Amino acid sequence: MASQVLLQTKLFRPGPAQLSGFIRRYSAPVANAIPAAKKKYVPTCGTYPQGFDASGIIVGVKPGNTTKPDVALISSHLPCSAAAVFTKNKFQAAPVTFSRDLLKKKSNAGIRSVLINSGCANAVTGKGGLEDAKLMAGAADKSLGSHEATVVMSTGVIGQRLPIQKIVDNVPTAFERLGSSHDHWLTCARAICTTDTFPKLRSRTFTLPSSGPSIEYRIAGMTKGAGMIHPNMATLLGVIATDAPVAPELMAPLLKHAVDRSFNSLTIDGDTSTNDTVAFLANGAAGGSDIAEADSPDYIALRDVLTDFAIDLAQLVVRDGEGATKFVTIRVAEAASEDAARRIASTIARSPLVKTALYGKDANWGRILCATGYSLISEPGHDVTPVPEIVPETTNVSFIPTDGSAELKLLVDGEPEDVDEARAAEILEMEDLEILVRLGTGKEEARYWTCDYSHEYITINGDYRT
Amino acid sequence: MASQVLLQTKLFRPGPAQLSGFIRRYSAPVANAIPAAKKKYVPTCGTYPQGFDASGIIVGVKPGNTTKPDVALISSHLPCSAAAVFTKNKFQAAPVTFSRDLLKKKSNAGIRSVLINSGCANAVTGKGGLEDAKLMAGAADKSLGSHEATVVMSTGVIGQRLPIQKIVDNVPTAFERLGSSHDHWLTCARAICTTDTFPKLRSRTFTLPSSGPSIEYRIAGMTKGAGMIHPNMATLLGVIATDAPVAPELMAPLLKHAVDRSFNSLTIDGDTSTNDTVAFLANGAAGGSDIAEADSPDYIALRDVLTDFAIDLAQLVVRDGEGATKFVTIRVAEAASEDAARRIASTIARSPLVKTALYGKDANWGRILCATGYSLISEPGHDVTPVPEIVPETTNVSFIPTDGSAELKLLVDGEPEDVDEARAAEILEMEDLEILVRLGTGKEEARYWTCDYSHEYITINGDYRT
Repeated sequence: MASQVLLQTKLFRPGPAQLSGFIRRYSAPVANAIPAAKKKYVPTCGTYPQGFDASGIIVGVKPGNTTKPDVALISSHLPCSAAAVFTKNKFQAAPVTFSRDLLKKKSNAGIRSVLINSGCANAVTGKGGLEDAKLMAGAADKSLGSHEATVVMSTGVIGQRLPIQKIVDNVPTAFERLGSSHDHWLTCARAICTTDTFPKLRSRTFTLPSSGPSIEYRIAGMTKGAGMIHPNMATLLGVIATDAPVAPELMAPLLKHAVDRSFNSLTIDGDTSTNDTVAFLANGAAGGSDIAEADSPDYIALRDVLTDFAIDLAQLVVRDGEGATKFVTIRVAEAASEDAARRIASTIARSPLVKTALYGKDANWGRILCATGYSLISEPGHDVTPVPEIVPETTNVSFIPTDGSAELKLLVDGEPEDVDEARAAEILEMEDLEILVRLGTGKEEARYWTCDYSHEYITINGDYRT
Repeated sequence: MASQVLLQTKLFRPGPAQLSGFIRRYSAPVANAIPAAKKKYVPTCGTYPQGFDASGIIVGVKPGNTTKPDVALISSHLPCSAAAVFTKNKFQAAPVTFSRDLLKKKSNAGIRSVLINSGCANAVTGKGGLEDAKLMAGAADKSLGSHEATVVMSTGVIGQRLPIQKIVDNVPTAFERLGSSHDHWLTCARAICTTDTFPKLRSRTFTLPSSGPSIEYRIAGMTKGAGMIHPNMATLLGVIATDAPVAPELMAPLLKHAVDRSFNSLTIDGDTSTNDTVAFLANGAAGGSDIAEADSPDYIALRDVLTDFAIDLAQLVVRDGEGATKFVTIRVAEAASEDAARRIASTIARSPLVKTALYGKDANWGRILCATGYSLISEPGHDVTPVPEIVPETTNVSFIPTDGSAELKLLVDGEPEDVDEARAAEILEMEDLEILVRLGTGKEEARYWTCDYSHEYITINGDYRT
């Protein structure tokens, strides 16, 4: 099936995918086609927030698609408080413009639905594209019997108009298919996927201090890669829904706190696509007293649940990095500032030489050190700046194995260790790995998650027309 | 031979290179092993500056090396004015520290030789490494009968000490083998190579306004990759020598002007290794009046010759990008500032998604636009900044074919063109290509050179212990 889709969209020449004999699916896999190694990341059951329903339907946004759900709907019986974090890219897709304006106009209240299509990003599509985004939202509002209550998102090819009539015509079906079962949510999560090899869905329960064990709150969410761990093109989308009651004005700070510590640790807005969007909805269906005060115990508790939940979701994106064979945490500690730590971690995490060494299972601390060493320096053509945050003589680099065994020190106070290559190879054989850089110049720290660069990464991206 | 070296240095496990059946040579090729497609970049004759000699000898800096020249020497009969541009990386190799201090101490005068080894970078080697750099330079000074007259450079594996006694013992041989023929210069250029597939040597003649055709000046130079087009690890080294007479205090501004417009357009100091160094020597052996005044006609003439020459050399590094199949010029025009244009060009040039699309011969302007759109935005966790330098509605993206045929417009004033895919495929089949982004917000421009990301790039970097 995958090769059929491929031929339909790229008739004019054979791409590297064919030449190398490897073909990645360009649409989300059907349930039984998830790679064996990834199956453990797909839940088989869930606890979903009350008052929310989900669906995913096959519309054929890409003309060749007749088998993969490509329109997703999440809808609440009650009006929700809602916020979203959007891409900073200067070329913002029409759904980004539309949804940002909507949330502003509605002061983050009165939202009922999120309608998403994959297969076409509706980006760089001019005024017509914005009109399409409005038509999509309007169709959902009509089915809801509401007005200005639908956030929209799109992901897929840039520069092409949506088959808007087809989508609009199918919106009633998306509403008809809504349901609250695990299968409904999973199909919805599949519908937002593009090059993902598995749907990314999570759910959990939590309590709040004010109500204690008397109320079980629920939170559920889905995301899609991104493909690359630094998703500078393939859209990252995310939707998180909870049945806790939250005042509209607290939604944005809650979400910002969570996203800064999760999706932004994949540099999602430092290196960001035209469409990246993460939305958060709260419908209050579980009852209890409104969370209406920032820094109240309930606020703090929800903020921490949301942040932890967002980290879980964000890590799934890394797990499905295009061609990835490794999940690597970059931790920069003992930094003079969190900002410096973040920039260094981000630089290491995106270094092609570090990422290829990880693929090659090479304990190449020189590349890690080198990326650290250039992460804060001035741009070409600008004067040399001092960069007091990095002092070679206090810098330490280690591998932290994820099986709880001992740290492997590679560089201690700027001096190379005599590395046990056999032990290094052992650690590098594991799927998960932490690289720890201690700067010795302060007390702050930051974490990034990354994966390796493989041959498959080149195959996928040499041939995928985003 | 290559596989032999490989086994000697990496006994403990098979790397992707072996697994994929492809093996890149980890040492510079012998003359007859240069890839057929690269032969055109290796000169078969040259005009070398008077009073300079060159040599390259086999020392065995890497224990397994018995066939590749790995120590290079360029030496002048007369004391030279000299300057160098060094890496900004916070982890600076010992030869960088040594040579910077030397040039400062000597006020850019009285330099006679440049001694370079490949195979070991002498980086992150502590005080012992600095001592080694001094011993290297001292051995050359001894052979010269001079004092503090030798600049040193190293490139290769990080974190290992030089086999310094072996090098010092062989320095007299390097002096014995000095000569001024093309073969001497070419062997010297081969000796500085690491993963390069061909030696990078250029020479030319020029005149200066004050002497006109009565004096033929000469300039010659060599460089080494870099491997990657954004050499954030593999060292980039360069040496340029001329027989024009230049006052010591003018050497640094001349070189800075040239490097900013050549090697720095490979982001060489924005994304820079521990060892990157480009040195410029002028011995005045051709005679004529000293160039002693900045902005004099002779100064301007030499500056332009040097800049043009440095561009030639720098482009050779891109031509030999690891695994590269394409040479791509990124030109950002109609920018509000040169700095903005540079940052945008650099961002496009290093985008993995743009580079893989080029490999896949995919006219994926969406990725180019996307990289443009995130190039000037704020870091993750920081507020959104306005970025007035980029206005979607005035942005244009085109392919400029290198055969003189018509420009192919992909995006005009922010609106996608209906692209002729057959014509796009035709342009993308060519080895050379220019991507032109017109911002429509000013009059400045900047250029970067880049290459594509291929499967071979992953193979090389997944297995090479730098």
